[in-house]
Amino acid sequence: MNLETTLSTIESQDNQWRARAKARLDQLTMPHWALGRLMDLAMDLAGITRSMQPPVKRRAVAVMAGDHGVADEGVSCYPKEVTAQMVYNFIAGGAGINALAQSSGTNVVVVDMGVATDLSELAKAGKIISKRVAPGTANMAAGPAMTLEQARRALEAGIEVAYELGPETDVFATGEMGIANTTPSSAIVSVLCGKPVAEVTGRGTGIDDAQHIHKVSVIERAISLNTPNASDPLDVLAKVGGFEIGGLAGLILGAASQRKPVVIDGFISTAAALIAHAFEPKTAEYMIAAHNSVECGHIAALAKLGKQPLLDLDFRLGEGTGAAVAMHLLDAAVSVLTRVATFEEASVSQATS
Amino acid sequence: MNLETTLSTIESQDNQWRARAKARLDQLTMPHWALGRLMDLAMDLAGITRSMQPPVKRRAVAVMAGDHGVADEGVSCYPKEVTAQMVYNFIAGGAGINALAQSSGTNVVVVDMGVATDLSELAKAGKIISKRVAPGTANMAAGPAMTLEQARRALEAGIEVAYELGPETDVFATGEMGIANTTPSSAIVSVLCGKPVAEVTGRGTGIDDAQHIHKVSVIERAISLNTPNASDPLDVLAKVGGFEIGGLAGLILGAASQRKPVVIDGFISTAAALIAHAFEPKTAEYMIAAHNSVECGHIAALAKLGKQPLLDLDFRLGEGTGAAVAMHLLDAAVSVLTRVATFEEASVSQATS
Repeated sequence: MNLETTLSTIESQDNQWRARAKARLDQLTMPHWALGRLMDLAMDLAGITRSMQPPVKRRAVAVMAGDHGVADEGVSCYPKEVTAQMVYNFIAGGAGINALAQSSGTNVVVVDMGVATDLSELAKAGKIISKRVAPGTANMAAGPAMTLEQARRALEAGIEVAYELGPETDVFATGEMGIANTTPSSAIVSVLCGKPVAEVTGRGTGIDDAQHIHKVSVIERAISLNTPNASDPLDVLAKVGGFEIGGLAGLILGAASQRKPVVIDGFISTAAALIAHAFEPKTAEYMIAAHNSVECGHIAALAKLGKQPLLDLDFRLGEGTGAAVAMHLLDAAVSVLTRVATFEEASVSQATS
Repeated sequence: MNLETTLSTIESQDNQWRARAKARLDQLTMPHWALGRLMDLAMDLAGITRSMQPPVKRRAVAVMAGDHGVADEGVSCYPKEVTAQMVYNFIAGGAGINALAQSSGTNVVVVDMGVATDLSELAKAGKIISKRVAPGTANMAAGPAMTLEQARRALEAGIEVAYELGPETDVFATGEMGIANTTPSSAIVSVLCGKPVAEVTGRGTGIDDAQHIHKVSVIERAISLNTPNASDPLDVLAKVGGFEIGGLAGLILGAASQRKPVVIDGFISTAAALIAHAFEPKTAEYMIAAHNSVECGHIAALAKLGKQPLLDLDFRLGEGTGAAVAMHLLDAAVSVLTRVATFEEASVSQATS
């Protein structure tokens, strides 16, 4: 499914289903809206899925992996080979995302969007999905990270993954792995939110003050060299993005196109969400912001999307870990919508004032 | 088990088990402590349970119900009979706590600590546990809410419930139902935290400005009339407490005495936790603060206990609903501790700086 066709199918949430959910939630045996944000979430799920019994049991987190040429600038404290090593860790079930996805009954699907290391054996064995655009992006501090054609391929690969998983997936979640990928993410957030680089650039995996100053200067250089056009998300993705970021943006578009909720993990996922949103603002109506990342640029990105995250647990890992934990809250929200009795059903007296 | 015996058995968390958990968490394949508060929680669970595989699967929320003489002062917007009506709703499975406990695999145990309505039929049928101290407290705005003897009975009933549920419970949670019970809770928080009443008194089920001013004045009158002694928690409970609040304080002491975690729900539960903490400060080491309630006094109470809540979802319901949702995070924390591989186990390169 190509990008333009997908974009043309994305519609707003259904206001009638939202209203139907609200009418029931208003009448539940509790002070009005006393389960706060879970009730907001239940209304969103009804509006997204067009159902008073929103299906949320079959979950998949797509963990998209890619390498970044800009890692050569020394913006991360981990060596590049860790991207592939972590893919092996995902396959073996030993990473943070495996533990948290297991806890919330979420299927982990690993996608090679462009890891520098050859992972074809894993793809052949059916352990990962290969949508490999190239063995890592080019260094955005020296030129565009990828061609426009590659950017489109990454997006359409993500859409494909959403449609391939669609028949057995009620809820999507975004996850990623890519050493140095907070660097392109900060660049995207800076460009699409119109914020100074320093304001939206954090410590990533844990760099020190000097490295942070360097990271900011690398991103500033990438932006001034490539001059990404903020009103053209394909151009932004190509010039200062990453393959896994493009893949996730496509996944989000594909989820919205199928009218299914997509739980957005942390900072890098939210940068991808900004790209999806820039293509089609209605996409944001299908997004559920999982958690508030430690990365300082996350706040600006969420504000641009009009999203308030569900959790705030000082996560700074990515991989989809925050999204996997947030899945529990989708269960809880559906349980409130479908299981709590109304005042009338339970014969409970209502408030007198 | 009497109060003094229980208090004498409460010990601190085990620092060796905490250190053992920390040593493993430090080595997991992720940037250091990148799962933030879940890792803090995992360390607490190891220290509480003295195990690297903290058992958390068998959960029970004790929903303790009681009526309050002070309801006659018009401090709530719901009529008193709602307490009993909601007990029937809990039994029928139609309340918020039922939905959220079901979602997190938590057993709901309803305890009559002193509901004004006769619930003996439910107790005979085995649908609730009866620990009924009296049919509601006296009006604390006109004298002590209960006698010292009743306060002790409420506490020891809670301890009994903890020990009765103990053999089949890994994790306890606190829940409550009692029309007007934010009023005694604010009184307790004011006395034990040394804060002005107005600063720790909220809107409860949703009273308006005039009712709020009235509620504050009722609590101020109760405190000035009864002069509860802040250094004597039994005195505070008797003069400005409630039967379900005493029961929950006992439950918390009983959980700590059995070295089991107890998830503290919202404002009323936290007032009970303050009573438990005043008896034995080490009890706080067994508490897990579930969520940040909309009630303004909750912040002061949590600060006194040195607790940061896990969730912030704008809940203001009580019943144990926040605790039921937080149970998911205990699962997630144990999953991180037990399932994530270390750098060495997974052959992943470590940070270079």
